[in-house]
Amino acid sequence: MLSAIDHVGIAVESIDEALVVYRDMLGMALVHRETVAEQGVEAVLLDVGDSHIELLEALGPETAIGRFISRRGPGLHHVAYQVQSVQETLAAYAAAGVRLIDERPRNGIRGSQVAFLHPAATGGVLTEIVQPAEEH
Amino acid sequence: MLSAIDHVGIAVESIDEALVVYRDMLGMALVHRETVAEQGVEAVLLDVGDSHIELLEALGPETAIGRFISRRGPGLHHVAYQVQSVQETLAAYAAAGVRLIDERPRNGIRGSQVAFLHPAATGGVLTEIVQPAEEH
Repeated sequence: MLSAIDHVGIAVESIDEALVVYRDMLGMALVHRETVAEQGVEAVLLDVGDSHIELLEALGPETAIGRFISRRGPGLHHVAYQVQSVQETLAAYAAAGVRLIDERPRNGIRGSQVAFLHPAATGGVLTEIVQPAEEH
Repeated sequence: MLSAIDHVGIAVESIDEALVVYRDMLGMALVHRETVAEQGVEAVLLDVGDSHIELLEALGPETAIGRFISRRGPGLHHVAYQVQSVQETLAAYAAAGVRLIDERPRNGIRGSQVAFLHPAATGGVLTEIVQPAEEH
């Protein structure tokens, strides 16, 4: 049902500084940059094989990423798995009693449909499921 | 140079309890289980497409994973990228001034060769490079 690791989300103080590491030093290709105002983040995607690293910079201290960084410092934030249908996967998880953050799909980066499971359901790991946009 | 996300390492209180989530609920196939005494962990690998989730349980409180969990709680621990040669990648990183934990490859899970970069070099993210054993 989970067909791949779609991406690993990393909370950073500054995307531009993090790109010096991830793009310039580790050699990942930068493929997308987007401001997602409703989630309070600026985000970039870098290619690693068929998966991505997603760097997340807070648009302010009172956003989810801003609070994460002030509580724990920059670092690993979430892991996202690719699914064929977020809607169907959510329905299956809800039927199995999995605790969810999102009960229905919402818009993610680059035209994707996404939903988050609650970290309490997955051993403390914030977990996302992603249905990529058709064209990707 | 980094050809794929090889695995995401997750620190757990109990592998057996985490398997109820990752194997039974999320449906990942369990493909390997190993006690790595010198690193103070019991570890399992689960398949997600061509990548893996690695669940890590401490063999005691004074191990790296034991200290991680007592400091931060269970959750995302490290991200590992696949490379063709750990030795050559380390040499390139050392020449570029990247701060390393391991200056030479060491034995990892399932016959792999691995090395860790220092989190200070990668924005707070403990980062591993992995050269899988020939037979995988």
